[in-house]
This record gives sequence, structure tokens and C-alpha cells, in this order.
Amino acid sequence: MTKHTIILQPSGRRGQIEEGTSVRTAARELGVEIESICAENATCGKCMVLIEEGRFEKYNIDSKRENVSPVTIEEANYFKRRPKLLKDKGWEVGQVRLSCQCRIRGDVLINVPEESRGNKQIVRKTARERQIEIKPAIRKYLVSMSPPTLERPIADWERLAKGLETSMGLVRGAEEKLPRWYELYIDYQCLRTLSKTLRDAKWQVTVSVWNDKEVIQVQPGYHEDSYGAAVDIGSTTVALYLCNLRTGELLAAESEMNPQIVYGEDVMSRIQYTIEHPDGLEKLHKAIIATLNKLLKQAVKSANEKIKEDSGLDTSGESARSTRPVGITLDDILEMVLVGNSTMHHILLNLHPNYLGLAPFVPAIHESVDVKARELGLQINPSGNIHVLPTIASFVGADTSGMILAEEPHKQDENWLLIDVGTNAELVLGNRKRLVCTSTPTGPALEGAHVEYGMRAAPGAIERVHIDEKTLEPKYKIVGEEEWNTGKAKGICGSAIIDAVAELFRAEIVDSRGRFRKELKSKRVREGEAGWEYVIAWAEETSIGRDIPITQQDVRQIQLAKAALFVAARTLLKRSNLQSPDKIILAGGFGSYIDKEKAMLIGLIPDCELQNVYAVGNAAGDGARIALLNIEKRNEIDSVTRKVERFELPTDPDFQNQFMLATSFPHMSEPFEHIAHLIPHHKADPMAKNFMK
Amino acid sequence: MTKHTIILQPSGRRGQIEEGTSVRTAARELGVEIESICAENATCGKCMVLIEEGRFEKYNIDSKRENVSPVTIEEANYFKRRPKLLKDKGWEVGQVRLSCQCRIRGDVLINVPEESRGNKQIVRKTARERQIEIKPAIRKYLVSMSPPTLERPIADWERLAKGLETSMGLVRGAEEKLPRWYELYIDYQCLRTLSKTLRDAKWQVTVSVWNDKEVIQVQPGYHEDSYGAAVDIGSTTVALYLCNLRTGELLAAESEMNPQIVYGEDVMSRIQYTIEHPDGLEKLHKAIIATLNKLLKQAVKSANEKIKEDSGLDTSGESARSTRPVGITLDDILEMVLVGNSTMHHILLNLHPNYLGLAPFVPAIHESVDVKARELGLQINPSGNIHVLPTIASFVGADTSGMILAEEPHKQDENWLLIDVGTNAELVLGNRKRLVCTSTPTGPALEGAHVEYGMRAAPGAIERVHIDEKTLEPKYKIVGEEEWNTGKAKGICGSAIIDAVAELFRAEIVDSRGRFRKELKSKRVREGEAGWEYVIAWAEETSIGRDIPITQQDVRQIQLAKAALFVAARTLLKRSNLQSPDKIILAGGFGSYIDKEKAMLIGLIPDCELQNVYAVGNAAGDGARIALLNIEKRNEIDSVTRKVERFELPTDPDFQNQFMLATSFPHMSEPFEHIAHLIPHHKADPMAKNFMK
Repeated sequence: MTKHTIILQPSGRRGQIEEGTSVRTAARELGVEIESICAENATCGKCMVLIEEGRFEKYNIDSKRENVSPVTIEEANYFKRRPKLLKDKGWEVGQVRLSCQCRIRGDVLINVPEESRGNKQIVRKTARERQIEIKPAIRKYLVSMSPPTLERPIADWERLAKGLETSMGLVRGAEEKLPRWYELYIDYQCLRTLSKTLRDAKWQVTVSVWNDKEVIQVQPGYHEDSYGAAVDIGSTTVALYLCNLRTGELLAAESEMNPQIVYGEDVMSRIQYTIEHPDGLEKLHKAIIATLNKLLKQAVKSANEKIKEDSGLDTSGESARSTRPVGITLDDILEMVLVGNSTMHHILLNLHPNYLGLAPFVPAIHESVDVKARELGLQINPSGNIHVLPTIASFVGADTSGMILAEEPHKQDENWLLIDVGTNAELVLGNRKRLVCTSTPTGPALEGAHVEYGMRAAPGAIERVHIDEKTLEPKYKIVGEEEWNTGKAKGICGSAIIDAVAELFRAEIVDSRGRFRKELKSKRVREGEAGWEYVIAWAEETSIGRDIPITQQDVRQIQLAKAALFVAARTLLKRSNLQSPDKIILAGGFGSYIDKEKAMLIGLIPDCELQNVYAVGNAAGDGARIALLNIEKRNEIDSVTRKVERFELPTDPDFQNQFMLATSFPHMSEPFEHIAHLIPHHKADPMAKNFMK
Repeated sequence: MTKHTIILQPSGRRGQIEEGTSVRTAARELGVEIESICAENATCGKCMVLIEEGRFEKYNIDSKRENVSPVTIEEANYFKRRPKLLKDKGWEVGQVRLSCQCRIRGDVLINVPEESRGNKQIVRKTARERQIEIKPAIRKYLVSMSPPTLERPIADWERLAKGLETSMGLVRGAEEKLPRWYELYIDYQCLRTLSKTLRDAKWQVTVSVWNDKEVIQVQPGYHEDSYGAAVDIGSTTVALYLCNLRTGELLAAESEMNPQIVYGEDVMSRIQYTIEHPDGLEKLHKAIIATLNKLLKQAVKSANEKIKEDSGLDTSGESARSTRPVGITLDDILEMVLVGNSTMHHILLNLHPNYLGLAPFVPAIHESVDVKARELGLQINPSGNIHVLPTIASFVGADTSGMILAEEPHKQDENWLLIDVGTNAELVLGNRKRLVCTSTPTGPALEGAHVEYGMRAAPGAIERVHIDEKTLEPKYKIVGEEEWNTGKAKGICGSAIIDAVAELFRAEIVDSRGRFRKELKSKRVREGEAGWEYVIAWAEETSIGRDIPITQQDVRQIQLAKAALFVAARTLLKRSNLQSPDKIILAGGFGSYIDKEKAMLIGLIPDCELQNVYAVGNAAGDGARIALLNIEKRNEIDSVTRKVERFELPTDPDFQNQFMLATSFPHMSEPFEHIAHLIPHHKADPMAKNFMK
């Protein structure tokens, strides 16, 4: 029977589905529930999906709308009765389908809109509460002026500037010799509405000044607060934090899948897309801008709910007092600070990323960029500034700058190793005297993708695995479940894959070279369709009705990924004449969910005191927030990144050899003292222990 | 028989035309020739006109397309065969008509496109050659870089900046303590194409730096020249000068009618239009931007013809030598400097002009404005700067700033009186110690409008008039004719109206109060339809087949205009404790064509040594050119205008009385010693002469 490749967005689930299967059934088979309450009769409309067109480098899929069955009469009738829905969403029939009616005819990419999803995805990037000194780029001043008269008909801007100058002590042309750009000026778009605002406000306004030099907002009356957004653009997830710039308070944290995933899963395939398609960059750029605007709107909505709630609590019983409208608008957001890897950085700024992917791997710009929101089409206040943190190298981007800013290795005496793990890993090592950095592709295996039953950290995902070394029986924990071994499993997420591989090694089910020990007597260790495998969950324990194993191929994927990461870390250590780092800081969502002991056991990270291994979550996003709330930090990170030394791994003569040695668990030739007690070989052979010392 | 008001653009000719007349005939009656070679058979298409929609405050005309006869079958056929023409021009049938077929049914505004005009209009603003010290805001540097390598993968912008820094000594973050905006940076839009340009250019580029701080253009290879445009936006005429910024050479001078004239003839009616129509400002703003873009294109074309011609002369016989393409593009224009009255200034910048027209008459901004070309939609290099000179008051705009910059009264010991005459006159008086200024509405009479047979200075316009005081017979000179009393007259332009009124007074045809002396025995002095008049040209001497007279009403118009101007000058003199200025400088096209003796004879300008009265042409435009070519002049005029004292005439308690006295020729109570010999009363009555002393 013919099968076709189906990819479901935004979950990223994918698999082979038989021709003729309905999209809704196909989705269920792949672990994605789509709503339906009409028993698939094309009447409830709950199961709407979007048939996307796009190209998947990785899978050689040219997804087309003809790869599904034509629109049925029932569907056509359903949509004919709902012209407003189509108009509001901007959908056309054929693009939007009822997934219960629409059948698979070929490879296809399907987007399941949020309203159709049976279980909402958990995007695990949340903002940590941090102590950040508040020194925002925006300051607000209340200015009262006397209205103009025939005797004193000074122009509106000069009147306002005079008011600002006298009451706030801002320098304005005080010294004749100063060139013009030292002076206070007003953003052109802000000037456009100034005259009306001043009169509407009866000459009492709140002026927002950016960087002590540019007036970017004039509001009638008195306003205390201004707002800003920090954004981390990941290749997979975009996270936005809306903050009060006066108090630093986090008002909303929103996230969305990066829509560019339709054009390529990793940065290299997106770069490739922009090279192969003349309008490729424009498409990718517009996609991320649209998503940022969506996140901004969502954040404003969330913030207003929060503000309303807070003010409701504060003024309970005295509601008559609050006469001012509570809440903020997009126009009140006066600045954004963004981070992202170099490719995301370039696409955000509409800079062609083609040279990022070609030797000698050069970005268009290192230093931070300031550009008006309106230039990028970001729908905050059009006079607002967009600040993008500096890039360090082609594969060490503004996200790494954010991580450095958040973790501050450049202020330490100890040598810290910072690792941000994604499909690409960036590593920074050093202290106040010297920082070195590099990057390495680790592949998507560490994030649960490209693993046979891999999936993202959503309900139904196995997130923890323990294997009894005697019985070889597993225990597992599923996302969303309190207890171990409860719930129905759908797949395995990143943290559980590390767990599983480490446990397979610890329980001696695979050897130090990652090979399954075929001689073991356990029904869980068996030869499957694609080679040897270990079954974590039997079909009856799953919601997909199939056994969920870890395969030989999965173990190999992890070996390649961890070897790449380890060699990168070892190279930096060698360049710094260090044997091991004093501390290891794991950034990124991934770092927060893995078991650090098990990560060390498979040699994913260098040997180190376990208590000195920290997971800090989204450090890049934290860095963006810090730079948003404290303008001095922007100069600091600009200055630090200028001094970071970059190394390209492939230029290291010993690279191939190092990589080979690093594929073993934990490593062919490195001592791993701190987890030595877990290494089976050592337990079995005390001689080996001596060899290590 | 019903008559309708017809207005023809861009000539501004207007009149009452009988219902049913074809537009082409109507135009001829109003002195505008429209081409035709098919004997009005709707086949040649030479006579195409555009039926405009718009509102004329002054005439209460709501011009509509239904106010002409419907499209005939012949016209429809003509246009059906020419879809490309319509598409290229963006015209639709009904808007575009064949003027031989289209008949008058009501009040209508008609635009005669240039290709249909029988005689091209002469717009008399041409640039004077001036000595201007060349210190442009744009400097060009040749930068050669070594390409990036894996060992030195520094980003493109930093590589370029390093190159600029080392070879040109530009400061770039040399002192760590300097804030970011002291440093050299690159305009965002310029950054977008940097990577490709550097590689295409094999790492040798010419970099254009604005104001020693911002990179705005990167061109492959070596380029010496950069270009800029200076613009004077008059209420009626827009003049653009394209200059080489390195040599100061004027490459092209182009002018067009101000398209805003459709929405109101003078600034007050345009302000009114923006108040009454929600989209009024947007329309006016877009109209001027479109015209500026058209002028830029024309200027580039003219410049390229000039450059081609020049290079052809230089390299005659050695054409093989010139391998580089000769010529410039819009993208090579890197800066524009604009002047205009405050209303034109506001509309250009899309600032609402409503408060300019309302007491206390306050502009949105005095100081000069710098804004990116792309923000205004001006189609020079999108990274190019648009500099608009400062405004001084609501009715003393950036054009006056330009005039001051060009004539430099602030550097004189003598007291100079600068007068820029248009429908509004601006006056500046003073010297290096003090400058005072004011403005006054003079009405359009001085420009030949609102005068019975007034017209602009186009072929067929009477431009000089002399009346024999014995025979009372006139001599006249027509624009485009070498000899006096030759050619066919169509109307009277501004300079001839001053001449005629002065001559009527000198020849004692009108008395000092401007009244016709009805007792005179001359067939030229007669009572016409609209009161007494003096016939300058008989019907057979004209191309319109009607007598061309100066009427009592025309004389009254001139009296009001000259009284307004005189009172303004007198007020400034009084405020400065001066009896008369040391020099009078007449700016604007008007000043260049009037006879200064005759202007003084009717009391248009204060008494002064005639040799100290200068006409300087378009001083505002000269000022724009100076500021374009010399950046230091921008600071100079910003600083000078901040100190100019403004007076509003109506606030002067003696205003009404002064105005009444000033309506007489030359004045009721002022001595006019320097033209006393021309005053008839004095010749007749020597006693009066004594009285004056």
C-alpha cells in the first residue's frame, strides 16, 4: 500500500501515512488530536486544518494542495455558510479543509490551527524572575507649557523642548559649538502628531525620551509607565516578554512556533531556501515579523488582563476612584530588544543570510543594531526603537550575546563553560580575562526530533526514563502526569532520550560503543524492523497503539550529537589550557529538563563536579530582558562581544580524531571521575578505574 | 446664454465660457493653445486634456467630470485602440478626453498635459550662478579591504568600518567612554545590501559618509562624484536644482507648477482644504511628493544629457577610452535640501498646517528637519537625507530662511530690506546686530492673477508697457518677441501690470488715488462692462480677438497689494528706528521682472536710491543650494533664524490708518524723493514738491 509523508505543524510531528486516510485520522496516528464533535459528518467544523504549501529540504517534500482529495460538496457547503470566518482569518477554501473529509493523496504539510487542536502544546520557555537593575533607555517627563500667544508665537516643538530643557536639565544647544546631533530632537513620526496632542492635552503632556536625546512619544496628561518587549527568536520557538520599563515587572510571556519552520527545519535549510528562491528572504522575513506582531498583540491582551486583575485587587470596594482607563496598547510599547542566532538575526533584519552558510562564514554585522520599529513593520509605537544584540560569529549569534549578558562569565574569576543546546550548540568558555567561543551542529536528536518516536515536550511525551539494571525493566514518566508509569505515552521527548540512552548504557544494554548487546535475555531487547531496539512502552500503554522503542539508530544519533558537543567543549578547554571548567552552565529549554548526571554519563558535557553544573533556562531571553531594562548593559555586551575569541572547529587539525574518540560512552580516552561510579565497565573492572587515574 | 467658469491648469488661465463650447475652443478663448492636426475629427489625439476633480475655494467651484458632455463614440473608439497609452499614463477614459469633442456643461477644471500644449509655458525661475564654498554633507572614501578568511572572519560592516577608520582617520569607538551615537554607523537600508556589494566589488568600494558619521551608500569600485538636489517649493511653482556635490556644478534646473493649486490657489485656501477634508493633508502631501519625484526624474534625464554632451566634447576622437558608463541615476542623489513657506513646509513634511492659519499662528517646528528620503517617499537614494531649512514664523517660512542665507543681511553693517513677493510677501530688515521680519498677504494681483486679463509670464503675455504722456498711446512688449509692439497679445503678466499702473499714474490717466480721469479725450480711456478702463491692445493686435484693457478694478487690486507691502516695510523700519533702508533686495521671480523705478513710483517699495535696489531672483532657491553644498551654512541659518524678531502686523495699533494712507500713489504722507521727478502732481505743482521736503 502506498504511504506518504505527513508533517503536522506546529507540533512538528511527522510520519508515513497510508494513502486515503483522512487527515484527522492521520493526525491521530501521529499523536496529534484534532477536535470533532459531529462524528466526522462535516457539520461541526471543529476539525478545520490548513493545507500548507512549502518545501522540506530534509524530506524532499514539495507539499502541494493537490496532494489531498478535492473539496467535497459537504465541505463546500459548510464553508459557503461561513464567509465571515474565511474573511476574518484570510483563508480560502481548499487551503482550509475539514480534516475529517480531506484524505491523503501524497506528501503534505498540514497546519493544525490552535482552535482545532485537541490538546494544546506546552512551549516550555518561561521567563525566570531575575534581579535586574532598572535603567531603561526610555525616560518619561511631565512637561507643562504656557500656550502660545500672538506675542510669543514660538513653534510647538521649540515650546516643548524648552519645557523639557528647563524642567529636566536636558542639554539643548546650550553650547553653540556642539554639533546638531548632540542635541535633543524629536522623531519625525512623533513630530507629525505633536501639534494636535499639545492642544488636546491643554499643554500638559508626558514626554518619552529615548537615550536622553530623542523624543519618541508625547502623551496628553500624566503617565508614569512605559513598556518594552524582549524577544528570543529561536529556530523553533519564538518567546516574547512584555515588561514594564519603570518597574521591570514582567507583564506577559508569550511564545509561538517559529513560522519559518515551513521553509526549512534548521538554519542551514532556511539559508538554502533563501538562496534557491528569489523571494525566499522576503517570505521568511515577513513570516517572523507577522509572528512577532501576533505575539505583541497577545502579550498586550495578557498584560491588560493582568493589570485589570491587579487593579481590581488594589481598588476593591473603591471602584469609583479609578477614572483613568486601565491597560496598555501596542502604541505604549516603546522599545524592543531581540536576540536570536545569526541566521534568525539576519532574517529578522531582512539581511541576506547566504554568506552565513558559506565559508568563511561571515555575518553582515557584529555590532548591535538600532532601527525604528516602523522600518521593520513591527507594530509597537512606530517611533519606538528596535535593538538587536550583537552577533559574535556566523554560528554564534545574538542569542549567545544574550546568554553571556545574562550569565556574566566575563565578570568571573573562575572559568565557566556556557552551553546553549539546540539543533546547533553554542559554547562560551572563560573568565574576566579571556572568553573563547565556538559552535557545533548537534542535530535535532537532542530535542527529540529525528528520533524514531521522538516528539516535543507535549502531553503524552515520555520525559523521564529509568531502567532497572537487574530486571532491565523500565519506569517512565509522562508530561502532564504526576506519577511514574501512569498515562498513555505518545512518544519520547528530548530529556527522556538522554535518560534512556544513559540508562541503556548504565544497565549494560548497550556497550560503551553504543551497540546493543544482542545476547541479553529480555523481551524488551529485540530485533525490530529497523534493527535492534529496546521497548520502553508496550502498545497497550500508549495512545498510538504501537510499541515505543529506543532504536539502535536513535542511540547512534545521540552518539553523534554528544560527540560534536564534547569535542567543541574540549577544543575550547584546550585553547584555554584548561583540563575542565569550574562551572558548566546549560542554557536553553533543553538544559533545564535533562538529568545532568545522565548527560555526563553519556559524555554529553565534560567531566565536572555535578553540583557545579547549572541549568539556567532561556539565558538568551534573559539577556534580552536585561538589555531591555538596562541601557548600560547594551554597551557592556557590545564591548564584551568585540573581545570574544572565535574558533571554527573544522580548522582544528585534530578534529576528526577527537570526534571519533568522543562517540564512545562517556569517552574513549577522557577520565570522567565525577560519574565514574555509574560507568558499568568501571564497576565490572576495577583495573580500568586505576587506568583512569 | 449660460456661462460657466473654466480653469485651465497648469497655466492658471480662467474665464467664463458659453455652455456647449468645446474645451479646445474654450482654451483658445482663454489664451491657451491646444494642439490639433485632424481638424477636430477625433482622430489625431493631439488635443487630449484631463478633466480634473477638485475644489476652488476662491471660485466656489466643485469641478466634476459630469460638467462636460459624455464621451462620444469617436472618442471611445480612439482610446479603445490605445490601451497602452492609458496604462502608461494611468489615465482612464472620461478623465482623459479629446478636447475637440468634449463640450462645456458646467464649471470645470481642465489640465492640459504638456504634450497637448500648443506653446510651452516659460517658468521663469532659473538658478543664478553663485560662488558657494563647497563643503557638502556627503564625503566619499575609497576603501580597499582584504577578503574575510576562516582565520579572520570579521563581519562585513566591521571590516568596512575598519577600512574607513584606518584610511580616513574617522573616529570609531576610539574612546570607550563615548556613547554609541558619536561613532560611525551605517544606515539600516544601506546595511541590507552591503554584503552583496562588497563581494560584487571584490572588496574595493567607494563609501559615501553623511555628516562624518553615517554610511549611506556603498558603491563598487571608485567613484568621485555625488549628487544632491536643492528645491524651492513655491505655492505656485516648484523649482529643483540638481547639483554635483563635489564641484558645486549645476547639472539641471527643472520646474513644475505646484500640483496643490488644484486644492486651493493660495496657502490659506489649502490650509482650509486640509481642515475641511479628512484626507485633505494626505492628498496635498502626496501631490507635492509626486511632483518632486517627477522633477527628480526630469533632472536626472537633463543631467545625463548634459554629462553625455560634456564627455562627448572632452573625448572627441578617443571614444575608445571611456569604458565607464556615463551618467547618474536617482540612486546617486544622496541628499536634498528644501525650502518653502511654512504651509508648503508643513505639507511637505506631512505636518498638519491647520494651526498656521489660526491665531496665534504657530508652526509645528522652527528648527531645520533632517529625515530619511524613504520616510517621505522621495525617490532619491532611500538612505539619503532630506534637510528642510528652519521656519521663522507661521507666515515667514523656510523660503525666507533660504533668502537670508543667500543674501546674508546678518553679515552686513548697512541695514538691508529683503522682500520676497508672491501672493504673500515676506520682509526681513536689519544688519549684523539685529534682524526683524514680518509678512503680509499681497494677493495674487502682483503675479498677474485676479487681474481681468492677467496671465502668467508665458508666450503672448504683455510684459512691458509704456504710455506716452502726451498722446496717451501705449507701447508694449510681448514675452518671446524681440521688438516692441510686435506679436499677438493674449494677456498681461505681473511685471506689465506694475508698468501699466505706474504709467497710467505718470501719464495722469489715473490720479494719485487710483481713479480714472473720466474727462480725458482718448478712445483708449473708456467705460467698459465692468467700469472704466484703459485699452492697452486692440482686439486685432491680440490672439484672443478681444481688446485687452487695464480696468479700474485692476488698479484697485494693485493699490491694495502695494499698500499691504508698504505698510509691512514701514512697520519694520519703525521698529528698527530707521527712516529708510540702505539697500532693498527684491527676491522671487516677480522682483526680477518689474521695473524698479515704476515699482517705487506706485509706492510698492519704500523710497531708496534706485541704484541700491537689487533684484536677486530666486533667493530662497539659492539659499537651498547653498545649504546643500555647504553643511556649515545649515548651522549658520539655524542659529540666525533663532534670533530673528518677528512682528505680526495686525497687532500694530496704527495698522488700519497706515494702510489707508499707503493706498495712494506713491503714498499719502511719505516723501518719495528718489522718484519725485516722475510724480505728476509734483511736475504740475512745484508747491507740492516743497511740501514734501
